[in-house]
Amino acid sequence: MLRQSSSRLTIRASRPGLTEFTEKVRSFVADSGIEQGLLTLFCRHTSASLVIQENAAPAARRDLEAYFQRIAPEGDAYEHDDEGPDDMPAHLRTALTATQLSIPIDNGRLALGTWQGIFLFEHRHSTPEREISLHLVGE
Amino acid sequence: MLRQSSSRLTIRASRPGLTEFTEKVRSFVADSGIEQGLLTLFCRHTSASLVIQENAAPAARRDLEAYFQRIAPEGDAYEHDDEGPDDMPAHLRTALTATQLSIPIDNGRLALGTWQGIFLFEHRHSTPEREISLHLVGE
Amino acid sequence: MLRQSSSRLTIRASRPGLTEFTEKVRSFVADSGIEQGLLTLFCRHTSASLVIQENAAPAARRDLEAYFQRIAPEGDAYEHDDEGPDDMPAHLRTALTATQLSIPIDNGRLALGTWQGIFLFEHRHSTPEREISLHLVGE
Repeated sequence: MLRQSSSRLTIRASRPGLTEFTEKVRSFVADSGIEQGLLTLFCRHTSASLVIQENAAPAARRDLEAYFQRIAPEGDAYEHDDEGPDDMPAHLRTALTATQLSIPIDNGRLALGTWQGIFLFEHRHSTPEREISLHLVGE
Repeated sequence: MLRQSSSRLTIRASRPGLTEFTEKVRSFVADSGIEQGLLTLFCRHTSASLVIQENAAPAARRDLEAYFQRIAPEGDAYEHDDEGPDDMPAHLRTALTATQLSIPIDNGRLALGTWQGIFLFEHRHSTPEREISLHLVGE
Repeated sequence: MLRQSSSRLTIRASRPGLTEFTEKVRSFVADSGIEQGLLTLFCRHTSASLVIQENAAPAARRDLEAYFQRIAPEGDAYEHDDEGPDDMPAHLRTALTATQLSIPIDNGRLALGTWQGIFLFEHRHSTPEREISLHLVGE
């Protein structure tokens, strides 16, 4: 019979950019005892986002960070700048990536591909604490 | 025991850009009586999309609208222009943002952060009626 | 009573860009016998992605492919290039589009709009085999 489980993760990046937290998600799935199902991650912020990316090559992470700095730069003139020059680019980079990700669970494991990791994409320099809401349905 | 509920919302923006409809989604969740679960919103169009953004600062909305006008502009030469110069940029802006969003429900409430609102992102000047399919699973 | 079903699709694009696979997804949903529910597609790769787009106009597909080639071009200097000049742009285009999509099921059918098709967005020239994990919950 189907059941569900939910939780919250708190993550604080040590610097802006990509911080992998796949292992924390794996622990939640393992603890639930659910073998087949669907896991959903939801980022409760508008200046940080979620992304599934290459988990092996640090250079790929740096390129990805540099790319988003380039296409949604801080130097641009934004009307909304009360919270500083990194605030509006943070909203734009959030809109361009993902606030939510759902990943199937197969045989008790996340159905991630070999090279896929789950990352928090922190867009603020101040790297505040971020809350990720988790939901799992399955059996 | 888990159960599900589904519905459709019809939204017509009064102008292109972001139109918040968080309250309509809240009403659907409240009416369902589901306390813990997962809500999914699906936009049934390829020239309008969904985005979770800053719900308090109108300037942030204007900056976000201006940004997408700039990175997927109408002035560009597109092969697909039968429906007018705003059609192909609409498809591009849809691909860059989201067609679907899932949000956990905790204690009968959407797990949105304090500053998160749910927006229809209308990309056509004609602002046609848009249909959002809703699905909720939980108990 | 709610139940779930899961599967994997293998897709190999014949060329880089958009390859529609809506019919394969429809078959999975029909075979499941589920009338109301939620289908999730998850792409198990970081250099290919998912997108819901215009299913009728080939020109719209070509414009969309050209757009992503332009905003995340191969010509740029990337630090991560061990796997060739198309590798890093593939990661960027994946981050800009979607790795996962969830679509409600209404009356045994995907709740897609009239013009919406489900596409694999292949970003590598070598068009390797791609695996899509499917999950369906409903009744």
